[in-house]
Formats: sequence, C-alpha cells, structure tokens
Amino acid sequence: MQAAILSMGDELVLGQTVDTNTAWLSVQLAKLGIPIREQVTIGDDLEATMRQLKRLAGESDWIIASGGLGPTDDDLTRHALARLLAVDLELHEPSLRQIEAIFDRMGWKMAPKNKIQAMIPRGCEVIENTCGTAPGLLADISGTPAFFLPGVPSEMKKMYELAVEPRLRQYLAGRAAAGVICSRTLHAFGIGESSIAERLGEMMARGKNPVVNTTAAHGIISIRINARAENEGQARCLIEPVEAEVRRRLGEYVYGTDEETMASVVGGLLRQRGQKVALAESCTGGLAAKLLTDVPGSSDYFAYGWVVYGNQAKTGLLHVNPQVLARFGAVSEPVAAEMTISARKISGADYGLGITGIAGPGGGTDEKPVGLVYIGLASAQDVDVRRFVFPGQREMVRLRAATAALNLLRLKLKI
Amino acid sequence: MQAAILSMGDELVLGQTVDTNTAWLSVQLAKLGIPIREQVTIGDDLEATMRQLKRLAGESDWIIASGGLGPTDDDLTRHALARLLAVDLELHEPSLRQIEAIFDRMGWKMAPKNKIQAMIPRGCEVIENTCGTAPGLLADISGTPAFFLPGVPSEMKKMYELAVEPRLRQYLAGRAAAGVICSRTLHAFGIGESSIAERLGEMMARGKNPVVNTTAAHGIISIRINARAENEGQARCLIEPVEAEVRRRLGEYVYGTDEETMASVVGGLLRQRGQKVALAESCTGGLAAKLLTDVPGSSDYFAYGWVVYGNQAKTGLLHVNPQVLARFGAVSEPVAAEMTISARKISGADYGLGITGIAGPGGGTDEKPVGLVYIGLASAQDVDVRRFVFPGQREMVRLRAATAALNLLRLKLKI
Repeated sequence: MQAAILSMGDELVLGQTVDTNTAWLSVQLAKLGIPIREQVTIGDDLEATMRQLKRLAGESDWIIASGGLGPTDDDLTRHALARLLAVDLELHEPSLRQIEAIFDRMGWKMAPKNKIQAMIPRGCEVIENTCGTAPGLLADISGTPAFFLPGVPSEMKKMYELAVEPRLRQYLAGRAAAGVICSRTLHAFGIGESSIAERLGEMMARGKNPVVNTTAAHGIISIRINARAENEGQARCLIEPVEAEVRRRLGEYVYGTDEETMASVVGGLLRQRGQKVALAESCTGGLAAKLLTDVPGSSDYFAYGWVVYGNQAKTGLLHVNPQVLARFGAVSEPVAAEMTISARKISGADYGLGITGIAGPGGGTDEKPVGLVYIGLASAQDVDVRRFVFPGQREMVRLRAATAALNLLRLKLKI
Repeated sequence: MQAAILSMGDELVLGQTVDTNTAWLSVQLAKLGIPIREQVTIGDDLEATMRQLKRLAGESDWIIASGGLGPTDDDLTRHALARLLAVDLELHEPSLRQIEAIFDRMGWKMAPKNKIQAMIPRGCEVIENTCGTAPGLLADISGTPAFFLPGVPSEMKKMYELAVEPRLRQYLAGRAAAGVICSRTLHAFGIGESSIAERLGEMMARGKNPVVNTTAAHGIISIRINARAENEGQARCLIEPVEAEVRRRLGEYVYGTDEETMASVVGGLLRQRGQKVALAESCTGGLAAKLLTDVPGSSDYFAYGWVVYGNQAKTGLLHVNPQVLARFGAVSEPVAAEMTISARKISGADYGLGITGIAGPGGGTDEKPVGLVYIGLASAQDVDVRRFVFPGQREMVRLRAATAALNLLRLKLKI
C-alpha cells in the first residue's frame, strides 16, 4: 500500500520555485500511515504527464498530483488525463458557475480563457475548489485512484483536507487496518553523525518498528523515531521506550525535541532560573543574538549584545586591552576572555558569552586557520574559554560557532 | 539531451525535510542549457534506489543524485550502486585519509563507522569532498554518467561547482550545439508583486522569448528573465534590452542582480565610497548585523553593532534619554533617532542605522500594532527616521525590518 506524489510545473523543473507542496502532502499521508513510494516532478509537458501517470498508476495504490490546472496554455494536466483515459473534455456547469462567481466577487469579468478550467475529462469526479478558479479532479487510471489538485499551496491544502483526506480514509477503512505513522525527533549537537550511529548501534537497524534514523544539518544531528501502529496512542507507546533509550545513550548531547531549537532550549533554561545572558560577538557578527531573539519573549533573558567586528570596537566598547590584542591577536583565548567578562560586567547579566574567530574565506593562516573560533562563557564564578576548529565555509563556520556558544551555556545551565 | 535529478532520504519522503537541493541543482543545469526530464525522490531503500537508477539511466543522458552517502546503515547509495553495477566496494585510501584529517582538525577521533564512506564501488570515480566526510562518486550506468553527491546542501553545492559542472561542460563541448537557457534575475524591494506585474504589463505575457516572471519571498520580489538561444552570447543579447526596460519601469526599487543580496549591494556602495556604517538594533536583535557580516570582507565597512534588546541597554549603551523612553516608549521615532545618532557618534562611522519595533507575536496594541517598526538613518548632515508597518509573523517582520534598514542606507548612498 503506497502512494506516489506527482508535481507538475516548468517553474519546478527550472528550479525557480522550491516545491513545498510535496513535503506537506507527504506529512499528511504519513499521518494516515500511507508510505510514499516516490515523489516525481516534471515540467508542463503533455507526453511526460501521460507517461508518468501511466507508470505511477501501475506501481502505486494512489496518485496525488498537483499543478497544471490553471487557465493558461501551459496548463496541460486535464488534456493529458483525457488523452490517457481516451475520453473527451466536457463542460462541467457547476464548476463554470463557481468560477464566474469568483470573478464576480472580485468585481472582474471572467476572462474567456478561464472557461477551460470547467472542462473535465468525461467520467472524472470534480473536487470543488472554494478558494480559487481551478477545480480538482479524481480519476481512475487502470484501477488506481488519482487525485489532481491545483499547484497553489493554499488551494491545494484546503482541497486536500476537505476532499482528498476523507476519501483516503474511506479507502483505508475498506482495507485491513492501515494504522498511522507517528514521529518524534531528538536534536543533538557536539557529536558527529557516525558517533551517534555507533552509540545507537542496533537501534538503527532497518525494518524495526519504531525505525530510528539520523539526518545532519549545520552540525546539528536530528534523530528521528518513526513508529507505525494502529492508532496514535499505540504509536506513542512504541516511541516512548525507544526515545528513553536514545536519550540514555546520547546523554547531554541531546538538547531538544521536535520543534525546539538550541536558542529556545537555552532561553527556557534561563527563564526557569530567572537569569540573563549578554553576548559579545566578533566573527558571528550578530548571528548568536539573532538566534536568541528568534524566540518570542527572549527579552525576558536577553537585553545586551555587542557586535565588535573591528579591533577598535573590541577595545572601545568591551575594554579589551590593546596590548593583549596586539600580542595575541583578535582571535585568541585572552581576547575572548576579556570580551566575555566585559559583556557580563557592563550588562549586569548572570552570564556573558563571547565569540571571536575566523569565519573565512580569507584571513586564515597555518597557525590560525579558517574555522578557528574561541568561545568564552563568563559566570559569577569564573570564565571558561574553549577553542574550536569548525569545518566548512563561512556560513557554516558562523552557524556552528553561534550554536556552539549557546550549547556551552546550555550545558552550564543544566549542571 | 536531458538530465534526471534523484534525491534519496526517508526524511524527504516523510516530508520531514523540504528538499532544496533539487531546485538548486535544476537552476545550475538550466544555466548549462540542460533540461530536466524529471526530478525523483525516494526513501532510503536499496531496491528502490537500484530500480530508479536503472530506469533513469535508460531514459536520461545524465543523472545527478544526492543523499545516502553518510556513514550510517540507512545510507545505501554506494551499496545500491555496487549491486546495480555488479561490482564490490573497495577502500579508497585518499578518501579515508581525507576523512581522518577532518576528524583530526575537529580534535575528534574518527569513528570506525566513517570508514564506510571511503568504500567505493570498483570502477567508480571519486569526487572529492573538501568540506565533509562523504566523498561523491561518478559512475557509468549503462553508458549514462551518474553523479552522486552528499545530501548536505553546503557540501553538495561545493562539489557540484568544483567537480560536476566542469564535467558537464566537457560532455556538452563534445556534442552539437544544444542551445542554452540563460537567466538574469533582478531583485526589487519596497514594492508589491502585483504592482510590479502592473508596471511590467505585456512584458510578462507567456510564450515570449525571453519570458519574464516574478517570485516573491520575504518582501523581496525577484524578476526573472529567461532566454533560450543557441549560445550564451545570443541569449545575453536577447536579455539585455528586456532587462533595461524592466529597470526603466521599476526604477530605484531594483536593488540587485542575480546572486547579489541587499547586504552585498550596500556593502559594495560603502566600500566604493570608503565609508562605514554602525548598527543599533532592538527588535531585529542582531539580524541586520548578521546580514551585513554574511558578506566576506564586511569588516572593511562595518565594525560596531549594538543589540539593545532591553530599555536599560538602550539608555546604558546608547544614551537614550530615560525620560524620552518613558514618555514615548521604546518603539517610537525619538528613541529610534537617539539610538541611531549615538551608534554613529560612538563608533565614529559615517552612518548610523537604528531599528526599533514590535516583532510580535506579543506586545502589540491598537496604537502600536505588531509589525510597527521605526528605522533611523544618521549621517553627518542629519537623522532621518521612517515609520513602517510590516505584515506577517515575527520572522517576517524582523527580516523585512532589517532589509528595509539596509535599503534606506542603499538609497542614501546612491544619491
């Protein structure tokens, strides 16, 4: 029991639009326990549409297609479907009236071109579009139900919810219990994907339920636990012990769950303790402050940040000793320490975080390569400076440095 | 002459990650004039990978695949490829040393699991990965060249540029002129997509060459001019007059071209004039500084930034008068003016930019709604404060505010 998702549009195959419909539809189908066999995207092309529909109908139990239902000459879905089914297009009066009504509401006259949107391959069922001029279709292609929705995300989503999902549920009810796929994601930082795989070992073996897998992005490793069960409650019961075991094996590397970010977790810990942090940033240039303040309500625990991107700013605003700066350089342990201590002191915050490094692409030497970053954390008790060498390009070095700084504070707050 | 793009990953077919690699790759191939026959996404599945590679190799001239090259058991690309080619995996010593070197630099020990990333199907060519642990592969599948790249976007892009594109150009040079699609993108800010459509009018009609269309993201409208011609020179000749006409109709709303960002354009103007800017940010919380410092070399024109996220920071660091703050509130014209003037004065920069507003979701009132932002620009001559009300959620308000601030400076520098 598998579905295929087909997206159509020249803007997609030219890469000018990132397709978000497919991911959204995939999540909806996963909720119903329907696995995706494949996601396919093609341009506005009659032959290609017919060929893919034929192939996918032969290999999948359902097809969910989007795009190509507009009024212009490159909207070819209904023509391809009619040719594939060897039927004519015929006028669907209720759809025409619906389209005319939409133009009426906007105070415009319906363009003649829009009439094509009410032309339906004979024998197909119409899926009403309450938000736009492109009605959807439900066709039977050699016994495989195929849903056709417009490519406009808001219309597609509405029509999926109102018409497609109920039909899928009906199909599923007619079969043996299909169940649901539930998911839990844990986020880890400061450890490589392969080390996580070693620690999780047999837990990541394929074919288990729940199945555990990992993805890596910007130094953050996300561990996904996907359980398949008859209903959500049972799926959650399957996930719970697995999640506990993953947490036990990864320990403090795991910083968050599902939608949590490093910044939201650090913010939550600061708020719990009624404490504040101040930031002194050089190479990250405001990125750490940006991450912290992405979180609504972050003014509860963050008020003071400095972007000391030049040496004069470091000495002038954060009292870094010019002789220390000259002797050790801006990217050094003592400068990180002074920035960090001053940020805490001037702001009166409980913690200071300071970041100085070489983001690249220029400025690296053998002794101080691109990616070298010193991160300081000052508290009432002491100041701790760590040395990192982050891999990757400028953007990656900056993001890892900012995340690592927040992570240092997280680990301090958890003690 | 067509290419297929294959993406692999359970996180993609489950909809947990939106695939941006495919769109990026499609743009690169379009630049070479290579049309995309189809984009296919499948889960981490050995059989499915083999089946799709076989099908796509039979139908396309090139395959560009990404994902499944990590160190864990669900990274199956190299196994599927070896099975399809009926060859063994063998150790590629240079790749192993490269992977060990990456772990060395981070001060970590290489996990034994990572050794699998240096195992290559016999006869395949290795594509070096300078940023990560997953080397890429170039295989010949029944005469069709197939490139395999890691799924991590930054690594994939770098490897495409360094290794895949030069190879594709070699292949193309060996063929009869295929024709190219050339593209030019203009970026506009401060005007809506429908207003742009009205100004461009008949220029946006379909079926023209070049074809002109627009996409909107985060308040930035990108106008794409796509020309198809026998070679790049001819395509550029087609684009040139159309681009000039678009610029004429949109005037100073157009701030940049192709890969340029608002920050890179502002930075270029500052560098030309040998001038500097300082930033005082409240609601954007470091985002404007982050955008400026995304650009390598930005220390030439940016050294001082303040994130004054609380009232005390505003008065303490930027000498905002506490009585003015009490009387008018933090989100007000006089506070924006004082922040801006102080940022310029303390830093000694030529310009000060100050941003104070209500990013939401909380904190809005009837009088001062979410989205209200005051942006100040101070120069040697004067200080100018503008009032904006940006639509959208927190993230959008912040991004629009930071972009609008940089845009104000751009317009000042262009005079």
